[in-house]
Amino acid sequence: MSGNGFGHTFRFTTFGESHGPAIGCVIDGVPPRLPLAEADIQPWLDARKPGQNRFTTQRQEADQVRILSGVFEGVTTGTSIGLLIENTDQRSKDYGDIKDTFRPGHADWVYEQKYGLRDYRGGGRSSARETAMRVAAGAVARVILDHLAPGIMIRGAMVQMGPHAIDPDKWDWDQRTENPFWCPDSEAAKGWEAFLDGVRKSGSSTGGVVEVVASGVPAGLGAPVYDKLDADLAKAMMSINAVKGVEIGAGFLAASLSGQDNADEMRMGADGRVRFLSNNAGGILGGISTGQDVVVRIAVKPTSSILIPTKSVDRHGNEIEVITKGRHDPCVAIRAVPVAEAMMAVTLADHLLRHRAQCG
Amino acid sequence: MSGNGFGHTFRFTTFGESHGPAIGCVIDGVPPRLPLAEADIQPWLDARKPGQNRFTTQRQEADQVRILSGVFEGVTTGTSIGLLIENTDQRSKDYGDIKDTFRPGHADWVYEQKYGLRDYRGGGRSSARETAMRVAAGAVARVILDHLAPGIMIRGAMVQMGPHAIDPDKWDWDQRTENPFWCPDSEAAKGWEAFLDGVRKSGSSTGGVVEVVASGVPAGLGAPVYDKLDADLAKAMMSINAVKGVEIGAGFLAASLSGQDNADEMRMGADGRVRFLSNNAGGILGGISTGQDVVVRIAVKPTSSILIPTKSVDRHGNEIEVITKGRHDPCVAIRAVPVAEAMMAVTLADHLLRHRAQCG
Amino acid sequence: MSGNGFGHTFRFTTFGESHGPAIGCVIDGVPPRLPLAEADIQPWLDARKPGQNRFTTQRQEADQVRILSGVFEGVTTGTSIGLLIENTDQRSKDYGDIKDTFRPGHADWVYEQKYGLRDYRGGGRSSARETAMRVAAGAVARVILDHLAPGIMIRGAMVQMGPHAIDPDKWDWDQRTENPFWCPDSEAAKGWEAFLDGVRKSGSSTGGVVEVVASGVPAGLGAPVYDKLDADLAKAMMSINAVKGVEIGAGFLAASLSGQDNADEMRMGADGRVRFLSNNAGGILGGISTGQDVVVRIAVKPTSSILIPTKSVDRHGNEIEVITKGRHDPCVAIRAVPVAEAMMAVTLADHLLRHRAQCG
Amino acid sequence: MSGNGFGHTFRFTTFGESHGPAIGCVIDGVPPRLPLAEADIQPWLDARKPGQNRFTTQRQEADQVRILSGVFEGVTTGTSIGLLIENTDQRSKDYGDIKDTFRPGHADWVYEQKYGLRDYRGGGRSSARETAMRVAAGAVARVILDHLAPGIMIRGAMVQMGPHAIDPDKWDWDQRTENPFWCPDSEAAKGWEAFLDGVRKSGSSTGGVVEVVASGVPAGLGAPVYDKLDADLAKAMMSINAVKGVEIGAGFLAASLSGQDNADEMRMGADGRVRFLSNNAGGILGGISTGQDVVVRIAVKPTSSILIPTKSVDRHGNEIEVITKGRHDPCVAIRAVPVAEAMMAVTLADHLLRHRAQCG
Repeated sequence: MSGNGFGHTFRFTTFGESHGPAIGCVIDGVPPRLPLAEADIQPWLDARKPGQNRFTTQRQEADQVRILSGVFEGVTTGTSIGLLIENTDQRSKDYGDIKDTFRPGHADWVYEQKYGLRDYRGGGRSSARETAMRVAAGAVARVILDHLAPGIMIRGAMVQMGPHAIDPDKWDWDQRTENPFWCPDSEAAKGWEAFLDGVRKSGSSTGGVVEVVASGVPAGLGAPVYDKLDADLAKAMMSINAVKGVEIGAGFLAASLSGQDNADEMRMGADGRVRFLSNNAGGILGGISTGQDVVVRIAVKPTSSILIPTKSVDRHGNEIEVITKGRHDPCVAIRAVPVAEAMMAVTLADHLLRHRAQCG
Repeated sequence: MSGNGFGHTFRFTTFGESHGPAIGCVIDGVPPRLPLAEADIQPWLDARKPGQNRFTTQRQEADQVRILSGVFEGVTTGTSIGLLIENTDQRSKDYGDIKDTFRPGHADWVYEQKYGLRDYRGGGRSSARETAMRVAAGAVARVILDHLAPGIMIRGAMVQMGPHAIDPDKWDWDQRTENPFWCPDSEAAKGWEAFLDGVRKSGSSTGGVVEVVASGVPAGLGAPVYDKLDADLAKAMMSINAVKGVEIGAGFLAASLSGQDNADEMRMGADGRVRFLSNNAGGILGGISTGQDVVVRIAVKPTSSILIPTKSVDRHGNEIEVITKGRHDPCVAIRAVPVAEAMMAVTLADHLLRHRAQCG
Repeated sequence: MSGNGFGHTFRFTTFGESHGPAIGCVIDGVPPRLPLAEADIQPWLDARKPGQNRFTTQRQEADQVRILSGVFEGVTTGTSIGLLIENTDQRSKDYGDIKDTFRPGHADWVYEQKYGLRDYRGGGRSSARETAMRVAAGAVARVILDHLAPGIMIRGAMVQMGPHAIDPDKWDWDQRTENPFWCPDSEAAKGWEAFLDGVRKSGSSTGGVVEVVASGVPAGLGAPVYDKLDADLAKAMMSINAVKGVEIGAGFLAASLSGQDNADEMRMGADGRVRFLSNNAGGILGGISTGQDVVVRIAVKPTSSILIPTKSVDRHGNEIEVITKGRHDPCVAIRAVPVAEAMMAVTLADHLLRHRAQCG
Repeated sequence: MSGNGFGHTFRFTTFGESHGPAIGCVIDGVPPRLPLAEADIQPWLDARKPGQNRFTTQRQEADQVRILSGVFEGVTTGTSIGLLIENTDQRSKDYGDIKDTFRPGHADWVYEQKYGLRDYRGGGRSSARETAMRVAAGAVARVILDHLAPGIMIRGAMVQMGPHAIDPDKWDWDQRTENPFWCPDSEAAKGWEAFLDGVRKSGSSTGGVVEVVASGVPAGLGAPVYDKLDADLAKAMMSINAVKGVEIGAGFLAASLSGQDNADEMRMGADGRVRFLSNNAGGILGGISTGQDVVVRIAVKPTSSILIPTKSVDRHGNEIEVITKGRHDPCVAIRAVPVAEAMMAVTLADHLLRHRAQCG
């Protein structure tokens, strides 16, 4: 258990480096008889794919996924699903000059500390390239959710770029695919565009905040103590490259509130079902879903791969200044959106199957 | 795997309800030949114990821990360690009146949704009583760290009560045991005391923010992808009752920063070792410890057990107003401090042993 | 994960040494709303209890189990179940003389090799005392099976004592509780009684073979590759003290057969369901249950705790001769019967819940 | 956790069907800086490869393995290792006629019972084709053992074909590669050759017994209770296709012995180290290795894919007679030899790393 897998009952394990021949994963625990084809996975990969506009790294990857097993005559068989994506646009020579240098804010130095060596080409295993397999596994998780808990919808949006947060009142889900930032307010997105052009031209980078909302989640998913639904979501989200914070519902704001202001009061709905008057809990109480929207926000740091010189050291103990050329994202938070959605999907699918095991 | 255990190589599994006869845990994976006695665990339990001042629940529990196995002639044997604490101050009758009501913000309703029933006495399994076993397991984890990675120090502090945050410049670790709030600024603590008295008298509650710092952590602990050290810390912390947010290092602030401002630059120290000029990363890069302080902050919501009426429903579908009498904490964040320290300890111990497995 | 737990979805973790204050376990994953009381567990413990006749160790343990959590108002709550049995008849001084000696065939020497020390009192953690918790967990597993897959019956029998095997044609389940050996042929049992009296009086011990049969197991339990039902049963059975071999169905005999003789042919039953004309497979094909009886046989070695001197060494490297006095079993296979039944129960319960997770 | 992986600290997870495009696996937990190339894996795959003589299936697979990740500049990096083998000699049409029939002794029927469908081409996931990935993972495990516990040698031999067992006194390891059966007695092998030709020509099949011996295993590997080294070996071996029994050391024979005859007496060797006068324990006591040879024997049933008609049923409930044409093994035990060796290697590697975690 060296950390390359996620989930218990729905579990996927990934492999692959940024500049190796391919990346892939094995997914274990998928229920049988669910329709599944490459066409169910590819669109999500396409949405994550870099190089689609000037605001993401210009690496061009086809990201064509192949299903190697676990599907027969168009449906899942219940056996493990192997997925593979060949890498096609590695330019390892771009990275020759960082072979002996440690980039501040990157995993370069700690990999050497832990393992005594590192695959320096494009960050090796620490590269965001790995997130393609998260998105692929997430697509399979969505198929499970669609069939076993129909009505769940998982959507992510970028709600803050650098210091510029959106106005929640202007949130319009329909807008988020109308701009290059998954921003649910196209007006705000215009401001971000100018801001990010400035960042990019200055050779710098910026952070951002991403919110993922899962609606239609049935009440009762989760577990009481250590595998709380929110605990597993926190792990899932914090495991995404560059994420430094995770909030559920009101999150850090809840620390400032009084008990009565934070409480989500309950009434009976016209349909005879319980309804909540607010959702500070973010759809999770005591580690178990309430049936409200599950709301998670994550803080994404600015990438350290910038053209502005930063102080560092090399493998020989020399003090140096580092400039990272290569192909990089001025705001990696943008590409974190589909990845965070995927991690929501896999976490929910895992807990859905776990719930079936224990509660039928 | 229904969620009552934490960790892989160092793993503990807990049981027990708020008003059952006892709580306990089994700890698996402890290295042999480490000195261990009840006296190594009891002080941490005493520090967590409620009822020590007017700012925590008045439940009086001796919290006397017994080691039932895994220790022979004063040292660990390498076999599983059983720990037990008898409950002594259950007052189940306090809770008879919530048998049929769902308290907003509590796990009452979701337990019924998931399991079709609940042990309503004192919250049953969802009670913070369970955290005593986290603290006990954390004490054992500290013994492991003390012997296998000497020099690690884990300390928590409350850094915000309700809307009142401390001034980081006035941080003095020596102060944190000089006030009832684990506040590292006794001056600020005086303001909190007045504030919390007001909260308590009004029958309300308040949230807070807790920071845990682990210093002396060697570089190289963690794993690259899903079991990142920060991912496991996020899960550990989010699994604590009432926690709604987790940050590492600069956390959500990092989202606002530029790449150059966020980068922790590196230089060579006079001792020939790499040193970092800042610690926005919170001691973790790419999921692996850097050797700097590991810094985690958690947001704790205000408890919903308040004397102020809140709208709710009962098991029969009637709309009601709920007032929670019983014995409760006006600011549960206070008692979260030793629990969060413990979760830091168990996460580090787990990753230390995992690191030994793979990297020797 | 240091080896003190068993199962994935239904999982129990045990602790306790032969001569410590208590033994216990935590069971995780039990479905909610199942009736459970100490009275459901105690009879199985009583059946395993030693000292009930002259053919088992004379240690007298009440083996009174207490349920400490996870049950409320007579039914399971879905949270973890803590079980505890106090040890009452430890006579540690019996073992003072083996403190520095290694008994051949015991775990004494390997514990010292692995851990650098051992709890020598009664074998410490390697004692068969631990199997009481297997039986307790097995009782809980039986409750799960009774409610979720009604009709499963798990019965064990001793089918060989030393070189004396029973005649399968004389098998009568009703007989097995009519003699002290769980022997399904009381006539054979009489011969065993004389044989074992001889063994006992000579200060020796003997091995035996135990068969466990689970009837009424629904088809479809298990998993295709590494977690085959028979693979998990093999692990479960081999983990029992003194077991040196495990067979499923025809077992080692199958190696001698031709394909046509070994094949279990299939026909349609009068009830419109498939029936098998034989059961060489022991109820498992490709790792998945067929609906026939699941049949497992285990070889139990003779205990090395004998009054006949055997050559050994002590901790100081001296060559010695060892005689083990204390209280011991002349044929531990007898007491392995309820333990093997319990391991069958926990394995089936685990796979039943896993099947629910994946296949609904 | 649906059963497609094996191991805890060294863990591999496989995917792939007999007639899919490829099979593969991910290996997690490999220590860094170990030399590893395809050339370290390929010879073991070649040894397992079918079609090399008339006694195994005539399927011709190149079985060329590719390392897709986890190795950089010739050494392991500590990240997950992806392995892939393309299938090249699928002849799915061979199997069209079994689409609707259930072959006795095969997994056909139980897969339908469990999953409601099956990939009938060549047995799909239940095919022995999957064992190629076991052998590949075993090769990586051997690299770990070679570097971290030098001196371990793992060798398997076939010791019985059908009813014909070898004479242990004629065992000569050098002979086992001199005949097509991994038989350590070439004289006996000649008899087997005639026997198997008869079996093959009659359209039948036969079972066999395989013994695997690991010498040079250091004392102290294993764990006391459920994850005993022998328990994990039992699971590993029983998970191999067609295996119906597992023995350690004296195995089932031990059931017939007296305590004094079964005890492995201990003396001091001339080198000042403890030596054992016999090895009935098969190198494992109390679940922990003794330093003697670890000896495991497995019973392999005859394959049910025979040309002799056997009674069965089809998917429509018709009673039929089945003849399996396709390409099959008259004695699958032959090909089980390298697979059983591989499972020994992965189990030892897993326990070696687990031992490092706990005991340093």
